[in-house]
This record gives sequence, C-alpha cells and structure tokens, in this order.
Amino acid sequence: MKYRIYNAKILTAEHGVVDGEMWVEEGKITFLSQCSPLILKPWDREIDMQGNLVMPSFKDAHAHSPMTFLRSFADDLPLDRWLFDKVFPYEACLTGEDCYWLSRLAILEYLSSGISAVSDMYFFLDDITGAFVDSGMRNVIMEGITQGNGPKDKMWARLDEGRRNLDGKGGLIEYRLGLHAEYTNDLSNIEAFVDYAKQNEMPVCMHISETKSEVENCIEKYGKSPIKLMYDMGAFANGATLYHCVHLSDEDIDIIAETGANVVSCPASNLKLASGIAPLEKLRKKGVNIGLGTDGAASNNSLDMLRETYLATTLQKYINNDASALPADVVLDMATKGSAKAMGLKDLDGLYVGARADLCVIDLSKPNMRPINNIVKNVVYAGSKADVLMTMVAGEIKYEKGEYFVGESVDKIYSMAEKITARIKKQVKSSK
Amino acid sequence: MKYRIYNAKILTAEHGVVDGEMWVEEGKITFLSQCSPLILKPWDREIDMQGNLVMPSFKDAHAHSPMTFLRSFADDLPLDRWLFDKVFPYEACLTGEDCYWLSRLAILEYLSSGISAVSDMYFFLDDITGAFVDSGMRNVIMEGITQGNGPKDKMWARLDEGRRNLDGKGGLIEYRLGLHAEYTNDLSNIEAFVDYAKQNEMPVCMHISETKSEVENCIEKYGKSPIKLMYDMGAFANGATLYHCVHLSDEDIDIIAETGANVVSCPASNLKLASGIAPLEKLRKKGVNIGLGTDGAASNNSLDMLRETYLATTLQKYINNDASALPADVVLDMATKGSAKAMGLKDLDGLYVGARADLCVIDLSKPNMRPINNIVKNVVYAGSKADVLMTMVAGEIKYEKGEYFVGESVDKIYSMAEKITARIKKQVKSSK
Repeated sequence: MKYRIYNAKILTAEHGVVDGEMWVEEGKITFLSQCSPLILKPWDREIDMQGNLVMPSFKDAHAHSPMTFLRSFADDLPLDRWLFDKVFPYEACLTGEDCYWLSRLAILEYLSSGISAVSDMYFFLDDITGAFVDSGMRNVIMEGITQGNGPKDKMWARLDEGRRNLDGKGGLIEYRLGLHAEYTNDLSNIEAFVDYAKQNEMPVCMHISETKSEVENCIEKYGKSPIKLMYDMGAFANGATLYHCVHLSDEDIDIIAETGANVVSCPASNLKLASGIAPLEKLRKKGVNIGLGTDGAASNNSLDMLRETYLATTLQKYINNDASALPADVVLDMATKGSAKAMGLKDLDGLYVGARADLCVIDLSKPNMRPINNIVKNVVYAGSKADVLMTMVAGEIKYEKGEYFVGESVDKIYSMAEKITARIKKQVKSSK
Repeated sequence: MKYRIYNAKILTAEHGVVDGEMWVEEGKITFLSQCSPLILKPWDREIDMQGNLVMPSFKDAHAHSPMTFLRSFADDLPLDRWLFDKVFPYEACLTGEDCYWLSRLAILEYLSSGISAVSDMYFFLDDITGAFVDSGMRNVIMEGITQGNGPKDKMWARLDEGRRNLDGKGGLIEYRLGLHAEYTNDLSNIEAFVDYAKQNEMPVCMHISETKSEVENCIEKYGKSPIKLMYDMGAFANGATLYHCVHLSDEDIDIIAETGANVVSCPASNLKLASGIAPLEKLRKKGVNIGLGTDGAASNNSLDMLRETYLATTLQKYINNDASALPADVVLDMATKGSAKAMGLKDLDGLYVGARADLCVIDLSKPNMRPINNIVKNVVYAGSKADVLMTMVAGEIKYEKGEYFVGESVDKIYSMAEKITARIKKQVKSSK
C-alpha cells in the first residue's frame, strides 16, 4: 500500500515534532519533510491528519498475549494465591486453538492503544504466531523454558524447532531464546540453555529479579543474586533482555550496564502484584537500554503502553523523591525505541526515511491535549489510549477510530474468547 | 427531561451489577429494576444501552479547574522550581474571564472521563461557578484563604459574600469554607478562619500534610503536626475535608478517624510531584471516609478519575506490600460515593430510586473489557477514559460518544484557552 500522510505533526527521530508530510510505501517510510513536494503518485490513500500527531508506535517488549482469558479473574489476592489457585490450574487447560483466539483478543487491545509489536513469552507458539500473522502484527516470540522442558537434548531440539519454524514467519515474527526464570529451572537446565545460546551466538531472554523473595531464595541457594548467577554462567555474553529487574543490587546494576544487557520494565504488573518498582533511573544513568512491557492481562490487567509509559516516569519521580526524574521525552523513547532495541527489532527506532512504517496517530483535539504547551509532555502525562486514532503496522493500517482491520470480525473474536473462558472455568471446577 | 434507559447493566447501590432498566425524570432516578414494566410514558428519549454498564458518575473531590492553562508547561522540574518559577508568576496574570474559559476547558475533560461534580479551590469564584452553571455541571467551591485574605474582618466579609452569592447558584453550586493551608497562613489567620467555621457550624476544607517538608516545618514552628495543630484549635469540630494527607503519623490518623474528618487523596498529583503516597489503606481500616481528586492540570496533568482510581488501589498494594490491599470495589466506591460524601453532596451516593441522576456509561464492547469475568475489576484495572460513552449530570446528558452538550462550541473553548495561555506567557516574559 502507498499512503500519503499530510497536514500532520510528526514526532521525528532527529528533529522533534515538525509540521509536515510523510509517505509510506510498501511498509517503509519513503519521504518525510516539512514541505509538500509537487509530485503526483498513485496513492492508495491520502490522509489529512488535521494537525494530529504522527508518532512511532509503541512496542510492548514483554507480554503473555493468551492470558487475556484471566483478565479481572484473579485480582486483589496475595501473589501466591493468585499464581497457584488462579493462574496455573487455569493455564493448564489451554489448548493451542485457545491461545490463537485469546491472542487475537489481545491484538485488538494492543492496536487500540498504539502498539504495533509485541514480545511474547508463552507456550503453543505456533498458534500465537498464527494469530499475529493472520492479524498482520509483529511478535518477537519465545518459549519460557522451565524444568519440564529438559533434559538437554529435548530442550535443544525444541529450541531448534522454534528457530526453524517460527523465525521470519510471515515477515512479522522473530524467534528468541527464552528461559522462564532461574527459580523454575535447576542449574543443569540453566547451563544447557546458556550453552545453546552461546553455541548459536544468540541473546538470552528471561524473567529475572521480579520479586524480593525470588532474589532472597536465589542467594540462599547459590550464594548470589540471579543476575550474578547468570552472569557468572556467561549468559549475557551474546546480549540479553531481562524482564522485570525490580530488585537489583548496585552490583547487579553494574553487571547489566557492563554487559550491555537490555532491561524491560513492566511497571503496572509490578505495582499491582505488589512486587515493587524497578530502579529505572539508576539503570538509565549507567547507560542501560530500557524498554517497557505490559506483562499479561492476568496481572496488569490492561495491555496499554500509554499507561506503562505514564507509570514508568511517575513512579521514578516517587522513588527518587525528585519530580524531575525520568522526563517525558526520555520515557516516551523507552516505550518506542528502547523497547524495539530490547526486542532486537531493526529499523523500528523512530520515524525517518528508510525506517519501517510502524506508527500511531494521537488525537490532539481532545480537551486533555489542550492548550498545546508541549506535545510530548501532553502525550505522556495527560494522554491515554482514548487519544489513539490510528495504528499502522508494517505500513498497513490495522486500527482506525474504533475499527479493526485484522482479517476477522471483532464479534467472532469476542465470542470465541468468552466461550473458551467459560469452558476452562467449567473444566477446572469439575476437576476439583 | 425524561429518559428511559434499558438493556443496561446497572451498578446499583445495593445489589451490585444487575441487568435492567432505569428511568431518569427531572434530575432524579425514578425507577430501577431488573424488569421492564408495561408503562408507556412520554419519554424525551429511550436509550438502548446495548448491554453496556451504567454506573454512578465520578466525583472529583479536589481540583483547581482554571489551571488547565499550565498543563504540560511545568513538568519534570523539582517541586520548588515548579511552584515558584512556573505556577505563581503565571497564575498572577489570570483574570476572572480567563478563569471562566479555562474552567470551561476543564469541564470538557471532566465530562469525557465520567465526572459529574468537582470541588474547586481557587480564586475568581464567580467566574468559575459561571462556567459550571453555564455548562450544567456541579461544583462544590471554595476559596483557599491565605495570609493575603486577612485581617479577620476582611476575611469574614469575603466568606460571608461567598456564601451569599454562590451557595445554591443555578442549583448546581455549593459553597464551602476553604483554608489554603497551614503553611500559607499565620496562626491568627488560621484562628480567625476556624472561628468563622465554628460560629457558622460549617466544616473546614484545606490542603494538609501534602509534603514531608510542610509537616517538618510545622513541627518545627508549632511543635506539632498540621493535623494536630488544626485539631487542637478545634478546626474539625463541625467536620472537615482534608486534601492530600500524604504524610500522616499514627496519631494524625487517629485524630482524623476520631473526628470523622474526610480525606481526599490525589494520587496522580502526589506521585508526579514526588510528594509521596497517602496511607489510604491505614485510614480505611480506621473507618475514615476517603474520596479521590485530580488536583489541577498543572501537576497531574490529566483530569481523569479513572486514572486516580487505578492509581489509588495499585499504589496501596505497593506500599502495603500486599496485592490484596484496597480491592477494586472499595476504590470504585471511594471515587464515587466517598468523594460525594467528602464534598458534602447529598443523594449522590449511588444509583437507587430517589437518588439524583449523575451517572456515566462504560463501554463493555472494547477489547480491554473482554472477557467479562468481573465488571467492576475490569473498570478499575483494565478501564480507562477511552471506555466512557456518556456522562449525565443532574439528569441531563452532557457528554455522549465524543460530543459535548454544554451550551458552547468546543472550538470556541479551545481557541479561548490557547489565546489566554499565549497572552499570559507573553505577559510574564515582558515583566521579567
């Protein structure tokens, strides 16, 4: 498709917000300027943005898309009851087809809040990636390897299969190596996983240092923090993307900075589960690349990167006792460029000629956006997903003013999600 | 106006969410039931809610409406630079007419997030209440008495005038006695103010214990906390509504509980200005009535009670290290019923026959609301202002699907707000 986008405010990679015009052709940005050239092209559509803001789309760098079925099902509970009574037994009933439809529901929500790419850690990866490819949306996907996926030869075969079947699928999927966590694997399993990453020169992605007790247990078991343990095993040698990182020592932070590992923070999930607040400002000051993620709908409960962005900055102001901590432009970069980098996505680091065309459009005509003193601060501090007018993925419009263009009807997706949720509840009940 | 609202899910005061029908006639709820009676009335409009949620409107129990002009103008700054460089000099340029138009802008935003009533503390009260009456919206309004409003006879005359001119205005306005704060008044001023409240048997409304330094300075000056100081002066004898209450000792909490004072928390503003997190769960466990407020757009920056509701509960989970703290139904009550009580509003404590008809409608057909495991938890944890379909104030529809019915065009309001903001910036610049 070829789109001419004009009469727009454009948040550019290098020049801040400019009034101008942008062309999107076959998935890429081919022109971006303050002036409108006198060239006539056979556009599929010319879009008058009416002065609204075109900005890079959000990239959700850590999610569990199929968990939509547990949204608002397991809230206001202590963490252990949430996990053992409400999450695990229900997840155990999921089929691959369930994961397809539940991911389709998540995709609608991602699109409605300006997200074009997600990084999922889950199981039934074929079905999840199917939902993303069918919807025309990006996913950087991985399993979360646990003890159940060993021994070594079986685990290696799984990882081989994932790379062979999923990487590059439909031009929208990239496969990564995901370890669920230190606390769900024994040392030999972790070693086998790290060996695979080393041999194939691939980065390691994993949940790490999410809760205080996780870190305490690791220290008790191995005499060191999860970060130090993984580092000592050489897990960060080919890069790493570390999810959560709420409870870090100064030594942990130094290790992350030194190895160039990426941190992905999920502020909403960490807050709601009372896990804590990640030390993003400290990490940033050491030069660590930080991305943001929503985590799954069971803990969050919304899949809304505008909320994550808002929380990331305001929570840093709070824990640093400094209203100037993590300014708006920096945190907006984290949610777009920082996330893309943490996900290993190329050419998705902003709006410039040659970049891939993943973008969203923010309505500046809502009362919460007025007066226009500072557009970026308006988006971060006064904005919400109510302001997202359009989301474009890989040069295709996937969401516009409440309508979804994902190759399947919203009603069908809702009805499948409700049906699956009801069936699983019944299944768990009858098994008790 | 007479409205028949049917095919709705209704969050009732006494029976939770029911599928049913509700009638609104001349500003009141006249019927509410699970069945649709066979009565034909001359309805002005029959509204098929298509299964969406009708719930009590949000009441914003602490705001400074005209501060919209400073939205996204003074962010990411330390508190003292924010206040002295960016707020005070600009506020000093405001005229009454400015406050009228800037309040009109705020009203659009309130309505778009389901708010029907606001409690403002500001100056130019005639102009602000004018904006609210012209828009058909409620305001429980007060000055914030400071040292500049003394001596006693002058201050008392002001308060007399406010009560005479504003209380009951247009059926939508109620006047209250507002003291700005302990730290902006000397002791004789506070005494004069408290005397007035005692003589007229009126509750005292004030900012209190918002920042750590405010409390420390008060202790240094008077040997006791602001709460203890005010209590010892008898300020809470006829009730009180206390804004912020971030830094409270156990003794402060006991005093608040014992006197039946209301606390209004502004979590977004307190977080963004790095003031802290109010101990709401502790207060609640002592039986204190708690309301929520947005504070002004200069500090927040959005006037969105759904955000405040979400923050109130998740921040309590965090500071109490307990994911079960302040559950969804409790915090939703705070944002509606608790706020109404703190504002002294009668018959606005929920949806029941005889209650005044202030309500909002939440779209349950958005992906973030699916599946429907628990509607109240969906609203609190997965909801946002994007889900607000309609806001009704005093039985009149003031907002519906992006359209405002406030007796003035949105374009005119935006253009006035932009013009005023530009003029004030110029004025401050030229005075330097």
